[in-house]
Amino acid sequence: MTASSSAQLRLATVSAHLASSSADPVSSALETSLPPVQINRDTLSVLLDGEDQTWRNWMFDQLKDPLFEYKNNITKEEAVRLNQQRTRHLARIGFRPKWDEPKFKNHKKFLAISDAMSYYDNSLSTMGGAHYGLYVGSIRELGSDELKAKWLPPADTFEIPGCFALTELGHGSNPRGIETEAHWDTKQGCYIINTPNITAQKYWIGAAAETAFMSVVWAQLYVPDPSNKDQWQHQGIHAFLVPIRDLKTREPCPGVTIRNCGAKSGLNGMDNGRLWFDHVKVPRNMCLDKYGGVNENGEYESMFQSKDQRFGGQLVNLSEGRVGLSISSANLAKTALTIAIRYGQTRRQFGARHPGEQETLIMDYNLHQRRLYPLLATTYAQHFAARAIMRMRDVEDKDLKQIKQFHVISSGLKSLHTWHLLDTLQATREACGGQGLKSSNRIGHMKADCDVMATYEGDNQVMLITVAKGSISDFTPKKIPALATFNKARFQNQTFSDATLLSSEFQLELFQHHAYAASQRLAAAVEITRSQQTDKKQSLDSILDQHSALSQEFARAVVEHFILQELVRIEKESLSSSSVSPLTLVRQLHGLWKLDMDPNMVRRRYIDESVQERIRDLVGAAIHRVHENVDALVSAFGVPDHLLGPIAGDWVQANVVEGNQDI
Amino acid sequence: MTASSSAQLRLATVSAHLASSSADPVSSALETSLPPVQINRDTLSVLLDGEDQTWRNWMFDQLKDPLFEYKNNITKEEAVRLNQQRTRHLARIGFRPKWDEPKFKNHKKFLAISDAMSYYDNSLSTMGGAHYGLYVGSIRELGSDELKAKWLPPADTFEIPGCFALTELGHGSNPRGIETEAHWDTKQGCYIINTPNITAQKYWIGAAAETAFMSVVWAQLYVPDPSNKDQWQHQGIHAFLVPIRDLKTREPCPGVTIRNCGAKSGLNGMDNGRLWFDHVKVPRNMCLDKYGGVNENGEYESMFQSKDQRFGGQLVNLSEGRVGLSISSANLAKTALTIAIRYGQTRRQFGARHPGEQETLIMDYNLHQRRLYPLLATTYAQHFAARAIMRMRDVEDKDLKQIKQFHVISSGLKSLHTWHLLDTLQATREACGGQGLKSSNRIGHMKADCDVMATYEGDNQVMLITVAKGSISDFTPKKIPALATFNKARFQNQTFSDATLLSSEFQLELFQHHAYAASQRLAAAVEITRSQQTDKKQSLDSILDQHSALSQEFARAVVEHFILQELVRIEKESLSSSSVSPLTLVRQLHGLWKLDMDPNMVRRRYIDESVQERIRDLVGAAIHRVHENVDALVSAFGVPDHLLGPIAGDWVQANVVEGNQDI
Repeated sequence: MTASSSAQLRLATVSAHLASSSADPVSSALETSLPPVQINRDTLSVLLDGEDQTWRNWMFDQLKDPLFEYKNNITKEEAVRLNQQRTRHLARIGFRPKWDEPKFKNHKKFLAISDAMSYYDNSLSTMGGAHYGLYVGSIRELGSDELKAKWLPPADTFEIPGCFALTELGHGSNPRGIETEAHWDTKQGCYIINTPNITAQKYWIGAAAETAFMSVVWAQLYVPDPSNKDQWQHQGIHAFLVPIRDLKTREPCPGVTIRNCGAKSGLNGMDNGRLWFDHVKVPRNMCLDKYGGVNENGEYESMFQSKDQRFGGQLVNLSEGRVGLSISSANLAKTALTIAIRYGQTRRQFGARHPGEQETLIMDYNLHQRRLYPLLATTYAQHFAARAIMRMRDVEDKDLKQIKQFHVISSGLKSLHTWHLLDTLQATREACGGQGLKSSNRIGHMKADCDVMATYEGDNQVMLITVAKGSISDFTPKKIPALATFNKARFQNQTFSDATLLSSEFQLELFQHHAYAASQRLAAAVEITRSQQTDKKQSLDSILDQHSALSQEFARAVVEHFILQELVRIEKESLSSSSVSPLTLVRQLHGLWKLDMDPNMVRRRYIDESVQERIRDLVGAAIHRVHENVDALVSAFGVPDHLLGPIAGDWVQANVVEGNQDI
Repeated sequence: MTASSSAQLRLATVSAHLASSSADPVSSALETSLPPVQINRDTLSVLLDGEDQTWRNWMFDQLKDPLFEYKNNITKEEAVRLNQQRTRHLARIGFRPKWDEPKFKNHKKFLAISDAMSYYDNSLSTMGGAHYGLYVGSIRELGSDELKAKWLPPADTFEIPGCFALTELGHGSNPRGIETEAHWDTKQGCYIINTPNITAQKYWIGAAAETAFMSVVWAQLYVPDPSNKDQWQHQGIHAFLVPIRDLKTREPCPGVTIRNCGAKSGLNGMDNGRLWFDHVKVPRNMCLDKYGGVNENGEYESMFQSKDQRFGGQLVNLSEGRVGLSISSANLAKTALTIAIRYGQTRRQFGARHPGEQETLIMDYNLHQRRLYPLLATTYAQHFAARAIMRMRDVEDKDLKQIKQFHVISSGLKSLHTWHLLDTLQATREACGGQGLKSSNRIGHMKADCDVMATYEGDNQVMLITVAKGSISDFTPKKIPALATFNKARFQNQTFSDATLLSSEFQLELFQHHAYAASQRLAAAVEITRSQQTDKKQSLDSILDQHSALSQEFARAVVEHFILQELVRIEKESLSSSSVSPLTLVRQLHGLWKLDMDPNMVRRRYIDESVQERIRDLVGAAIHRVHENVDALVSAFGVPDHLLGPIAGDWVQANVVEGNQDI
C-alpha cells in the first residue's frame, strides 16, 4: 500500500458516500433540531498541536527509517535487541535534550519530539522512559556534580544504559515497604547493599535483564546510632548508583545476581529483570544524596527531618512518569481510532440499503458509530487534559500547594487515561473484527503492549485512592468558592432546553455538582465510621478502603471534572478567533455520554427522568453530527500513514496473493 | 512449586487470617443484619459438575503429560507445531467420540472430557473446534455415506486434518454475502470452484495455513438454467469437500493458493490461512449435498425452495460453535478468578492494620473484593446458563420453535459470556499487577488468546441484533403469560425489606420487568420509524440499527433475564436437599450487582432512589459474605493446580534465584 493509493481509496469512498447520504434513512431519522456543523480540519489541528509542527513532523519522518518498521512474530530476545538498536539510533540523532542542557531551553522542540515518539511503540517509549526518565532523571535530580559529569554523558548516548531498581517482588504500588537494605559501614567507609530475603529481590526492573550496566538502587538506609554505635538508626529510603554489569565483559558485577522476569503477554521489547545484591559495597559518593546521606565525617545528614518528606522529594520523577502515560495514552487512542474509523469508512458488509447499491459501509451503521464516536470525543478531551498536566509539571519552583495538586491530578489522569486507552483499544479491536488482531494492523499489538499501563507507575485504583485522599479536604466551598452555592436539588423538578443541555455551562456545573455531592457523601461516611470506631488509630487510607465504592466514585468525579473543565477552557479560548469552536461538538458528545452512561452519575438522579431521556436523544444527535465531521476530526489528529496498519489504507490491495502477510 | 507446598501456604495464610479477622475493622464495619452463611465446597462442586467427575478428572490428568506444559516465548510456527502434536496426542488417547458413534452414546463421558479440555488453552480448543466441530461436523451432517466412510476415519485420528472455509476477506459476520463461486459444468460433469476477486479470498481459515489437507469450501452455487442453458441459475450457498494439499508432498493442490494470515496478537497456536481457488474442478460426489446439489442426471435438487432455508440448515454447526464459546468462557473465567483470588489471599501490601502485625493481605481490602467478587458471582451464573444452552443443543429433533429459541439464546449467551470473560481477564490481570502479565501466570496469555472470542463465530454486537430481532415478537404477554400483569409502576413508590431485595422472586421479576419494558420501548420506536418512513422497503435490521441503543439494551436484558432465570432454577432445585442453597449468596450478589451497576437498569428508575441506595448497601454486604466463603466458592470450581500459574501457589518460592523464569 502506498500512502497515495490509500488516500485515494478513502477519498473515493467518502465522496461516493456523501453523494448518496441525503437518501440515507439512518441519518435522516436521527435528525434533530440541531443545526448542522462543519468542522475545519486545519483549525482543529492547530488547536490540538499548535501552529508550528516542524519538530513533530521531523520525528515522524525519523520513524520512516527501515529500522523502525514494525516487526512481529519475533522472540523477546529479538524484540529487546531491536529496541536497543532503535533507542541507540534515536540517541544518535538527538531526540532528547543533553543532560547538561537547561531544562527549559528548546523546551517546545523536545516536547514536540517526545510527543510524536509516543505514537510509535510502547516498548520503545518504555525503554526511553526507564533510561532517560528514571535512571538519568534520578542522577540529574539527586546526584552530585561529580556523578553527573561522569555518568550522564555516556547515558545520553545510550552507550551506558541504566535502570531504576525500586520495585521488589513484595512491593510494587507501595514502594514505601521495600525491604532491600543499605547499611553504612563506618570501618570501611562505604554503604553495604543487601537483599535480605526472596520478596526483597528487585523485580520488573526495566532494562535490567539484558540492557543495563548501571542501576539506581533504592534501599532502606540504616546508619549507626550516634548515641549507641551498636544500634542501627533507620533513615528511610535512599537511592544509590550501583554498577550491575561489567562494562567490558557484560558479566554481572561481584555480588550482583541478575535474572530475566520471563515472557510477558506484551511489551516484550522491554527486558524486565530481577536483581539480588549480596552485601555489595557502594562508595560513599555513589549515594544520590541531595535529600540525605552520610557526609564526609561519616554522619547522616538530611535537609528533612521526616523520612516521608525525604522519600517524597526523591520520587518526584515518578509523577513525571505518570504525566508521560497520560500523554501516550491519548496519542495511542488517537492512533487506534484513526485505524478503526478509516477501516469503517472503506469496509462494507451486511448487504445494501437499496437494491443495486453496494453493501453499506460499516461506519454508516448507527451501532458502529456508537462503538467509536464517544471514545473519539473523550480522546479529544483527554488530549487537552494531558496538555494541562504537562503545563503543571513544567511550572518551575512549584509551591507546596502546586506540588500537591500536581501529584493528585497526575495520579488521577494516569488512571482515567490509561483505562480509556484500554477501552478504546478493546472497542477498536472489536470494530475491526479479526483484522484488529492481526499484528500488522497494530491494534492487537498495542493492546498487548499497553495493558501494563493500568498497573505500572501505580495501580489505577490505588491511584484513585490517592486522588480521593488528596481531594477530600480540597473539594470544599472554602477552596472552591463556586461550591458555596451548592444546592442538592439544583437540577431537579426542572426541564431544560436542548441548548442548555448541550451548553458547556450546564455540563460543567453538573460534573462539578456530582464531584461535590460525592465528596459530601464520602466525607459523611468517613465521619460516621470515625464516630463508631473502637479502633481509634484506624488510618484514613483504611477508612477510605472501607468505603471503596464511594472513594472511587468521588475520585473519578474529581478527575472527570478536571478533564471537562480543561476541554471547556480550550473550547472558549478558541471562540475568540471564531464564533463557533470546532471543539464544541466533541465537548458536547463527551459530556453527554458521561451523563448518559456513567452508572454513578445516572444513579444519583441529579436530573429528572425526562431530562435523562432527552440527554440520551441528544447523544444520538451528537453522534450523528460527529459522523458528518468524522474525516476532519480524525485527520486533525495527524497520525501519519506509516504509523497505521494496512487496514487504515487500501486493505484490499494489501491482501493480494503477492503480498507477504506471513510475518 | 509443588501442589502440596502451594496448598500449605494458602492454608497457613488463610488460617492466620481467620484467627485475626474478628478484630478486623473492615469486616466488622460491613456487617449488616444479614445472618452469616457457611457454604460447603463439596455440595457446591456437585451442583456445578455433578457427582461423577471421573471423566473430568481423567482429562485433567491427561493434561499433566509433559507435552501439555505451557510454552511461552515461541514463534507462531513453533506454537502451531506444538498445537498439532497436542491435538494428535489427544486423538490417540480418544478424547472425542468416533465419527460413526451415535451422537448420544457415552454423551456424559464426552461432555465431561470436552468440558475439562476447555480450561486448558484456547489455541488447542480452537484447533479441535475447527477440525472436529466444523470440518468433521459438516461432513457428518451434510455429506454422503461414501464421503463419511472415506474421509472421517483419518479425520478422527487427525491424520488428515481439515479446515472449514466459509469466511472471506470481504465477508465475516455476514456469511450470506460470500463471493466464492461454484459453477456446475455440465460437459465435464463436475463443479468448478473459483475465487473471482481479492475480497472473495477465504480468510482466517483455521488450520489452513499449515495444518489442513482438506477443506470444506463454501461457495455460491450456479447451475445452468434448465429452460435456457446459456444462463446461470443462482442456488445459494453450498459446501464442497476440496483437497487443498497433496497428502504426500504437502504442496498446495493444482489451482489452490495458500497464504498465512500472519502474526496475531494471540491464538498463534492456530494457523489461520488464506485460500484462493483458480477454477478448481470438484467431482459431483464431493458436494455436501444433504440440503441441495446436482443429482446424477445433472439437475439441481433440493428439499428446500428457499435459499435461506438451505443455508440455515447447513450452518447449524455454527450455533454449536457458539455453545462451545459460552462454555469455554465460563471455564476460563473460573481459571482466571482462581488465580487472582488465590494470589490475593497470599500477597500482602500497603502496611499492617495494627502495629506489629504483618502487612494486610490484598484480598482483605474492600477495593480488591469489589474488583473480583461480582465477577465471581456472575461466573457462577454463566456456568449454569452454559449448561442450559448445552441441554437445548442436545435436544434431538428440535421443532422449529426450539430451533429458533436455541439460535437466539446461543447467540446472546455467546456475546455476554465472551465479554464477561474479557472483563474478568482484564480485572484479574490488574488485580495481579505485573504478575498478571507474566506469561507463566497464564492470565495475560489467556487475554491475548481469548480476545478473538468477541468477534469470531459472529461479532458480539451483531449477535445481539439477532437476539433483538428474534425476541421482539416473542417477549409478549401472549408468549410469556407472566407479562400480562405487567405494570409500569410495579416497583415505584414503595419500599422493600432487605429480605425482599435479596430474594430471587424480586430480582427475577425486576429483570423480567426490564426486559419487557425494553421490548416495549423498542417496539414503539420501530413502530414510529415505520409510520414515518418514506422508504417502505427499509428492513427490520436497518430499523433496529437506527435504534441501536434500544436494540442492544433489549437484547442484553433478554439474555440477562435468561441467565438469572437459570441460576434461580438451579438454586431452587438445590433447596430440595437442604433448607439453604449454597447458590443463594452468589445469586444475590449477581442480581444486586446488575441492579446497581448496569447503566440501563439504573437509568430506567424502576425503583425509588432510596431502594436503589439500599441495593448498593446490600451489594457491600453480599461482597462481605462472599469474602467469608471465598475458599469454598473458588475451590468448588475444581480447576487443578497444573492449569494455574505459579502466583496461584507459592509464588515466593517460585521466585528463588534458582528458579528459571527466563522462559
